Amino acid sequence: MAKKLSVENGKVRVIPLGGMEKIGMNITAFETDDSIIVVDCGLAFPEDDMLGIDLVIPDITYLKDHREKVKGFVITHGHEDHIGALPYILKELNAPIYATKLTMAIIENKLKEHEIQKSVKRKVVKYGQFINLGDFRIEVIRTNHSIADAAALAIYTPAGVIIHTGDFKVDHTPVFGDTIDLARFGDLGRKGVLALMMDSTNAIKPGFTSSERTVGKALDAIFAENANHRIIVATFASNVDRVQQIINSAAKFQRKVVIEGRSMVNIIETATEIGYLDIPPNIVITIEDMKKYTDKQLVLITTGSQGEAMAALSRIAASIHRKLSIKPGDTVIFSSTPIPGNEKSVSKVINELSMSGANVIFQDTHVSGHACQEELKLIYSLVKPKFVIPIHGEFRHLQAQSKLAIEMGIAKKNVFLLRSGNVVELMENNARIVDKVQAQGIMVDGLGVGDVGNIVLRDRQHLSENGLITIVLTLEHGSNQVLAGPDIVSRGFVYVRESEDLMVECHDVVAEALQYCIDKGVTDWSRMKNSMKDALSEFLWKKTKRNPMILPIIMEL
Amino acid sequence: MAKKLSVENGKVRVIPLGGMEKIGMNITAFETDDSIIVVDCGLAFPEDDMLGIDLVIPDITYLKDHREKVKGFVITHGHEDHIGALPYILKELNAPIYATKLTMAIIENKLKEHEIQKSVKRKVVKYGQFINLGDFRIEVIRTNHSIADAAALAIYTPAGVIIHTGDFKVDHTPVFGDTIDLARFGDLGRKGVLALMMDSTNAIKPGFTSSERTVGKALDAIFAENANHRIIVATFASNVDRVQQIINSAAKFQRKVVIEGRSMVNIIETATEIGYLDIPPNIVITIEDMKKYTDKQLVLITTGSQGEAMAALSRIAASIHRKLSIKPGDTVIFSSTPIPGNEKSVSKVINELSMSGANVIFQDTHVSGHACQEELKLIYSLVKPKFVIPIHGEFRHLQAQSKLAIEMGIAKKNVFLLRSGNVVELMENNARIVDKVQAQGIMVDGLGVGDVGNIVLRDRQHLSENGLITIVLTLEHGSNQVLAGPDIVSRGFVYVRESEDLMVECHDVVAEALQYCIDKGVTDWSRMKNSMKDALSEFLWKKTKRNPMILPIIMEL
Repeated sequence: MAKKLSVENGKVRVIPLGGMEKIGMNITAFETDDSIIVVDCGLAFPEDDMLGIDLVIPDITYLKDHREKVKGFVITHGHEDHIGALPYILKELNAPIYATKLTMAIIENKLKEHEIQKSVKRKVVKYGQFINLGDFRIEVIRTNHSIADAAALAIYTPAGVIIHTGDFKVDHTPVFGDTIDLARFGDLGRKGVLALMMDSTNAIKPGFTSSERTVGKALDAIFAENANHRIIVATFASNVDRVQQIINSAAKFQRKVVIEGRSMVNIIETATEIGYLDIPPNIVITIEDMKKYTDKQLVLITTGSQGEAMAALSRIAASIHRKLSIKPGDTVIFSSTPIPGNEKSVSKVINELSMSGANVIFQDTHVSGHACQEELKLIYSLVKPKFVIPIHGEFRHLQAQSKLAIEMGIAKKNVFLLRSGNVVELMENNARIVDKVQAQGIMVDGLGVGDVGNIVLRDRQHLSENGLITIVLTLEHGSNQVLAGPDIVSRGFVYVRESEDLMVECHDVVAEALQYCIDKGVTDWSRMKNSMKDALSEFLWKKTKRNPMILPIIMEL
Repeated sequence: MAKKLSVENGKVRVIPLGGMEKIGMNITAFETDDSIIVVDCGLAFPEDDMLGIDLVIPDITYLKDHREKVKGFVITHGHEDHIGALPYILKELNAPIYATKLTMAIIENKLKEHEIQKSVKRKVVKYGQFINLGDFRIEVIRTNHSIADAAALAIYTPAGVIIHTGDFKVDHTPVFGDTIDLARFGDLGRKGVLALMMDSTNAIKPGFTSSERTVGKALDAIFAENANHRIIVATFASNVDRVQQIINSAAKFQRKVVIEGRSMVNIIETATEIGYLDIPPNIVITIEDMKKYTDKQLVLITTGSQGEAMAALSRIAASIHRKLSIKPGDTVIFSSTPIPGNEKSVSKVINELSMSGANVIFQDTHVSGHACQEELKLIYSLVKPKFVIPIHGEFRHLQAQSKLAIEMGIAKKNVFLLRSGNVVELMENNARIVDKVQAQGIMVDGLGVGDVGNIVLRDRQHLSENGLITIVLTLEHGSNQVLAGPDIVSRGFVYVRESEDLMVECHDVVAEALQYCIDKGVTDWSRMKNSMKDALSEFLWKKTKRNPMILPIIMEL
């Protein structure tokens, strides 16, 4: 259990428990002698080689080992990579959650799904508000991002103030709410900031990120140009401002709005309830009512902008949606950019839509939610931090921000390019990596958390590429005489009906290997199994250049 | 067998047998009453859902049904999506191959690998040369592309001249050889061109594609800036001009060159043999000799620019290369752009290189090999075709070129947006789709061609996501008394050592279902199997929300 701690006075430890090597699973612990606070608690989506895995959550062994010190979770905004692991982590380590209004509303939906909303304390906070948690005092600062209510945090620690930006951009003309509170960043900078932990997602991109409002103009132009066609817009459900702008364009061009896709319906409900969406009366209609209107009177807002196989747009494109299908002339707008890894799925959906005669538009209808280099430099100029810990992004993005920080005059030795689990100890005039704690992601498959490991994944990989051949036989106890079998059953190997000869040959090879064992007086089952397996494996490689998993099972009578 | 044909005089049929829905597998048949010629014979790489599949080749049933008419394969250039299926197809349908020098040299390497180089007739052709094949006369026209010796074809048919561009761009300052023969396109246009079949890959991109030579300048700048570091450049092996420019930069900056990666070594050998690469004497050294030089005296040219798991750069990045590893300060240049679908693998490699301390550069060091919109318009202006059949690219790219053609004044009814297998009949003043022939891709897995179908793929998918549970038991013949089992064996499901209780429960569920069958007097094996399968499946879904493949096997004694 809890090993004895030694965070002295005037010191603070920063421990990113995830998110430093690749995108997602953002979670950072801040620790003093008495207190731990946790900023964000996100999930990561599985890597390509994590077959069958649903999602990946942080390993919080370190937090559990010091559970009595954990004062709460402070959440910067409502995206999955910042909140998605909360339901899993809270079951292991219950502590109060602090978040802004929309962020909390989204978290509450999640807790309800997992049926733990009653057991978790929650406190909604406002921009400018301070939260006292043990040794820490946390100030919530307004930022802009691709979801409303995003916050940066100024964390007052015994060693000084640490600013954690969360994901952010600088939007001087946001759709909802106000511009990022640059003045406050300036105030803090003037008073002295110990460390800056800033979003690196776009640190390789020069210039500024465009305002969300530019998308509204682009949408209006497309609506004007396609006045005679039905318009379908796919975007991220969580981008409430984007949804607002699509609805604005629809209202401007006298179109009714249909909302499709479970997560889109949910978020619109949630955002509307708390007053974050302004929907004109009678503009939203049901799918069933669509038939009362002509094409040019309709806009469909849908999920599936990432080509996700089960999302509404993908089902529409593949002609397997129960209520909607593409007609020639439909205008389909992708108000999104493919998240790395989704490019091929998105292309597939675009091609399918094109084949059905749709006109697909994906230019000028999306802006990033993350600050580019000039915005990052602006924050450096305002905050003038002593130490820098780049966060959020792939490792190469963190590296790019490190370079930027050095260009902005931060001493190279004061820039910490961390890996998940690194423990950085910060003092007023000094900082260093002092430890490394456990911080591997934990894979979730169905209800199983952490019960799928590398052996299981390796087997799934093997099975996925080559399929399986099972060899079964029954031996007589004692004599080891073959009573039944060997029988051969395959799955995912070849289409058996067209490969009967091959399966007969497989059987003969196995039977021969078995007979050889018996003739030689081999009685050890594992040796018999290996003989059959090796013989079959060698035969199949020669014959087919394939390598199916071979699973010999011996029964005894 | 061969159905009676009816291509009348003054007519020609164009049949794309692949490549119209997605990238790759380019192959088009041109047919008259007496003759068929085939342009290109490419492979496609497997889609994400084609688990374990190595590659996809065209279905040439139609060609085999008319094999006596097939006069030859004319190949436009040496990329896999234009030549890769040749070894497979030639085994089914042997016909002479016509190609330019480098293209043929690459094809010959392939035929050697498949040990069929002796049985296939080959004729190397030059730009400006005419080939007579039955009713067709084919003129070979110089183009530019990301591989040397690319050709467009002017195909003289009974209905008129059809121009097939292959993959191309307009490069006014190519690295090797001359600019695309625009004058010849103009000549043909003046005389009258029946149809234009043009590369659509970049049809959604405005402007012009930059010259290959711009990459040389960018490389020089990077070499100058990184004078004190070892430089590693990853690029496509087949881009001989790119390799030439890297060697030029190396020579200019007095660096020795190490070549790594099997396909890179092969192509450099082939291109050097036929005089397409100009390598200064004593500049290339072996990996073993690297230790004789300092970092700033070395350049490594390597495969792996697409993040391919087994390629040299990926192995270096993952620290599993036997002879090479990254040292902090190494400059790694990606002289490439990720092919759609490879973005995530490329990111992974970049992150790994960054973590080892390399400085990774991927800007300004690549240009496309495909014509953008302004180049396509230039060809339309020169060729002035009556009919247009966009080729090469995803369906959405073909669609984009259709729009461009219409903007360029081609009548909408004269633009044919085809699907693979469509048969277009062209006459001097008329063209229409008259038929559709079999044109599905055929999957190759190891030595097996076409023996993996949808059932096998579905099983592989199922196995990959959830693993497998096998139930085995032995029954007495006649009495159906259980003699042994049921035994439960799983693979790829859960890590069994840590889930012993679950496996015991699985056994109990199955045993109970079996006993129920016996008690009820069920003797039909398939009913018994289904009972056990259903019971276990239901239990596991409730308990784990997972759905492994369940494979019951009953043996009889």
